[in-house]
Amino acid sequence: MNIEVISARKRYRLQAEAGSGLMDCLIKAGVMDATECAGRGICGKCAVKVHSGELAPTGEGPAEAQTNGRVLACRSLIKESVVIEIPCGKDDIKRKVCLPGLQQQERFEDTPVEKHFIQMSAPSLRDQLSDLERILAQVGKNKKAPRSLLKDLPDLLRRSDFAVTATLIGDDLIDIEAGDTHTQSYGFIVDVGTTTIAIYLVDLHTGAVLDADGKANPQRTFGSDVLSRISVASAENGNREKIQAVTLEAVSDSMRHLLKRHGVAERNVYNVIVVGNTTMSHLFLGVDPKNLAVAPFIPCYRNRVSMKGGDLGLPMHPEGTLHVLPNISGYVGSDTLGVAMATKPWEQKGYSLAVDIGTNGEIILGYKGWMLACSAAAGPAFEGAHIHNGMRAGKGAIETVCFENNGIKLGVIGEAAPQGLCGSGLIDAVAELLRAGLLDARGRLADETSEATGRPLGDRLRVSNGMREFVLVLAGEQGSEQDIVITQKDIRELQLAKAAIAAGIAVLMQEVKINASQIDRLYLAGAFGNYLDRENAVALGMFPGIPAEKIIPIGNAAAEGAGLCLLSAGQLKMADRIAAFVKPVELSARADFNEQFVREIGFPPVEGKSAS
Amino acid sequence: MNIEVISARKRYRLQAEAGSGLMDCLIKAGVMDATECAGRGICGKCAVKVHSGELAPTGEGPAEAQTNGRVLACRSLIKESVVIEIPCGKDDIKRKVCLPGLQQQERFEDTPVEKHFIQMSAPSLRDQLSDLERILAQVGKNKKAPRSLLKDLPDLLRRSDFAVTATLIGDDLIDIEAGDTHTQSYGFIVDVGTTTIAIYLVDLHTGAVLDADGKANPQRTFGSDVLSRISVASAENGNREKIQAVTLEAVSDSMRHLLKRHGVAERNVYNVIVVGNTTMSHLFLGVDPKNLAVAPFIPCYRNRVSMKGGDLGLPMHPEGTLHVLPNISGYVGSDTLGVAMATKPWEQKGYSLAVDIGTNGEIILGYKGWMLACSAAAGPAFEGAHIHNGMRAGKGAIETVCFENNGIKLGVIGEAAPQGLCGSGLIDAVAELLRAGLLDARGRLADETSEATGRPLGDRLRVSNGMREFVLVLAGEQGSEQDIVITQKDIRELQLAKAAIAAGIAVLMQEVKINASQIDRLYLAGAFGNYLDRENAVALGMFPGIPAEKIIPIGNAAAEGAGLCLLSAGQLKMADRIAAFVKPVELSARADFNEQFVREIGFPPVEGKSAS
Repeated sequence: MNIEVISARKRYRLQAEAGSGLMDCLIKAGVMDATECAGRGICGKCAVKVHSGELAPTGEGPAEAQTNGRVLACRSLIKESVVIEIPCGKDDIKRKVCLPGLQQQERFEDTPVEKHFIQMSAPSLRDQLSDLERILAQVGKNKKAPRSLLKDLPDLLRRSDFAVTATLIGDDLIDIEAGDTHTQSYGFIVDVGTTTIAIYLVDLHTGAVLDADGKANPQRTFGSDVLSRISVASAENGNREKIQAVTLEAVSDSMRHLLKRHGVAERNVYNVIVVGNTTMSHLFLGVDPKNLAVAPFIPCYRNRVSMKGGDLGLPMHPEGTLHVLPNISGYVGSDTLGVAMATKPWEQKGYSLAVDIGTNGEIILGYKGWMLACSAAAGPAFEGAHIHNGMRAGKGAIETVCFENNGIKLGVIGEAAPQGLCGSGLIDAVAELLRAGLLDARGRLADETSEATGRPLGDRLRVSNGMREFVLVLAGEQGSEQDIVITQKDIRELQLAKAAIAAGIAVLMQEVKINASQIDRLYLAGAFGNYLDRENAVALGMFPGIPAEKIIPIGNAAAEGAGLCLLSAGQLKMADRIAAFVKPVELSARADFNEQFVREIGFPPVEGKSAS
Repeated sequence: MNIEVISARKRYRLQAEAGSGLMDCLIKAGVMDATECAGRGICGKCAVKVHSGELAPTGEGPAEAQTNGRVLACRSLIKESVVIEIPCGKDDIKRKVCLPGLQQQERFEDTPVEKHFIQMSAPSLRDQLSDLERILAQVGKNKKAPRSLLKDLPDLLRRSDFAVTATLIGDDLIDIEAGDTHTQSYGFIVDVGTTTIAIYLVDLHTGAVLDADGKANPQRTFGSDVLSRISVASAENGNREKIQAVTLEAVSDSMRHLLKRHGVAERNVYNVIVVGNTTMSHLFLGVDPKNLAVAPFIPCYRNRVSMKGGDLGLPMHPEGTLHVLPNISGYVGSDTLGVAMATKPWEQKGYSLAVDIGTNGEIILGYKGWMLACSAAAGPAFEGAHIHNGMRAGKGAIETVCFENNGIKLGVIGEAAPQGLCGSGLIDAVAELLRAGLLDARGRLADETSEATGRPLGDRLRVSNGMREFVLVLAGEQGSEQDIVITQKDIRELQLAKAAIAAGIAVLMQEVKINASQIDRLYLAGAFGNYLDRENAVALGMFPGIPAEKIIPIGNAAAEGAGLCLLSAGQLKMADRIAAFVKPVELSARADFNEQFVREIGFPPVEGKSAS
């Protein structure tokens, strides 16, 4: 059968046998990513529009998507040739994940990778130094060379008239190249998030971040949160290896993609720093994460794991180094360590908070001589998952919402027709609903028949499938093909998420007996933190007691901190020390966290939004 | 076609197609080793006896062997089913290579491999140390663990109730095993000689040498001496890799064989020390040896090359260590360094000589504060090659010869019928010919018609193919199936070999201006040195001016010294220092070596052999 697939950017022509599953076929062909519910008909993110031809239902449940006559690919079988439209082709997704740029990294004196151009005299009967010693005489007598470097060294030296570039990592002489290549030195920062993987290509010679690539973490087909992934990894023989394999493949793909775009050879990639939460680090390394999920919650390892570049088969110099930064505890991973390294609270005046909002909200509270960290399970709402019309921050995602008089002004990523809501849009919309009086402090949407009557936009409230919802976009408005709504359940998800963050912050402050007014600054890290409207986050009570002007968005600080470790041997050592220095605070074991959490579920009293 | 092969110990039944080469077929089936001339019809070592059926000649040259109606396998094609007898089956050769036993090694305090049995308390909510840190708390906080160790560590610890054995090499924690396995610790000494590879299995826990295996170096099919192997390795793309591959395969086979015999798991092999001359070390590592053969004779590397056990695929723990000991120069390899480490001239009183006789004779002259070393190209005569009826010291080899009245008393290895002469037998025979007056001081065999008339055994002199020869064994005598002779050419080969050694010694003594009477001891190393009759070697003038009573046979000292480095981190470091400390003396560049060489070609005046 011929399957023609129309995506936002391309047309694909695929072949499939009658009776095969449409979703499998789309994933295999690489035009659709596996979805967050792993094809169980739950998330609705695989809905496709059939332009011509017909699909057969699998019979496992309703195949109709909730919008506009679309059908779920995961619930459909191929029975004849069809033309379908997918909401967002895989290649679009890749391009569109928003990665905040890293700050230009400085160039450190103690770079772990050194390249030296050296010009030697040729050997003679009066100068019978071996080839290797001739090089070591220039770069340090005690450097060690791997066997792989020796193999063809004699020819290389003579072909290049004894003018070569030596690459050194610490005491290891890892490569000799003909001629002067000392400026060709590259590294990667790999930030393995539960939902998103971000990869940065760094020029080790100048310290500049050259480019970035982001993609959905392919592990999500094994579950959307860390607990379900741990359970899958532990459930069946080989699952752990599979999870590691898809992760490494995704990382390799992104690395290759960036290398190609910048014309960089794999051989010139010498250093890679990987950060992630403790579970992501375990899975990246193929290490059994089972005990992270059961009391007493023991990680297999905590310290930094370093290895040769060739060990995991990533596209880099096989004798280069790959460091997975140390975790702080079973709940607080190396990504949080990265945030600590990027913000360095011990160098700041007064009390600093740093919050990295992802599927988990990692929170650091630091002062000169101490640091506390915890991880609050916010859930994936901020990343657009588990939200009725939620989506990741890509093309077509509503990222800003502003109620004006009787209209709604939307900011949509990529100047496209709106397709759904990402985290920042959701926060804006809920804050505006609060201000408009369409949502009360307990998080209940107004009754569409009584309470809302006469209020601006009150006519957009309705009940659908027995649940109240607010219609942000009606099908036809702004080019949208479907209604985009915020349901009562979406608001509950958001309340749980923001309450987890707020309670986490409160517990850390209680731990050192300070209150919110004493906090001097709150660093807001992560892609989401960068695009978040600070006023609106404050309006929702995400950071109780901390005014918007103290909030400083800092982009992907986890990667930023990893970048310091990539460029400086001293920063890498410091990260090892800091990992042991930060005191992890385990929230789930604490009654006061649960009390705080319940207290933070509601919204604070409405204030007008200041003109910012 | 059916090929039935009768060897000394076994019968083999093989299948071959008509028209295929007999030798290829025998080598492929593993019943014959490749011969020293690589099947070019020169060495005659592939001669087989045809019991039934007929072979076809290849037409490349005469197929008849020089003895008893045998034919050369390398010059024969299969045309019908045959029954043939081979002189010495491959499995016999393996068993029979004579390896001098190493001395019982002492147990050092600073063993590089440590195994500790540790018993830990299980984690709890009050003790949330990670699994790895729980172990490191017992064995040292700063030890590093490879990724491979982490993967299944959580399960292992819990299965073994937190009672495990940790294996450490330096700062690396390389393995964790359930229960107490601290006595299971093994290593290998690998001595890669140009002609023979010797492998020793060592118990690292007790320091005992448990067993040894020896085999012909399979590189000999690429040439019998180092120069021809360098030329082959450099000639064609892929040759170098092939040479390395056959070498590693031979080493792996021997290791596996010894491991099986002693019931030792590959995983419990943690350390391997490799020695060999500079060319052998280069080829073992797959390193381009080309420049060793052309002026100014530059090795690719000189220092120790260390790597992980997994790097070369040898049967050992992949995170164990393999060290190829440093070379002293392009001519003086790590095997000589091993001899220096075993004899330690700097700890002795007075002047010490150490001579390791193989295809090259490596000579060390040392005193408290200095050491000189050189390598004299003796050729393979001492190992039975390039000798008309020569063979390696295996079953059927005549290893001692004594003329008694009018008879000849032979010592044959393995109480078998004599098949040929090994090096020590050749030396004995020539010394006896000298004493009997059948050989003059210039090395000329007596004329069979005039000079020999009336002398005992004079009737055994004859001329064959225009060359004088002495018949040591007539076909039929002592069960021999063929005449075993010593030809005039054999005697010339021996003269060249012993003159090279003698001249090498003389040059080293000249270098420090001492004479032979000042030498306090001469250590005679190597398999050959151990079986050599010292009186006879002196009678031939191999060690001019040094009496037999100063000669101390010390077995395989190269391996002995390697064993010290296997068992002690301090000895390994000392070997690195000694390699830089020994002054190599390059013989080929010196006019005085050539003068001495010519002077030493003849034999000294005959003295009676003392009763020893």
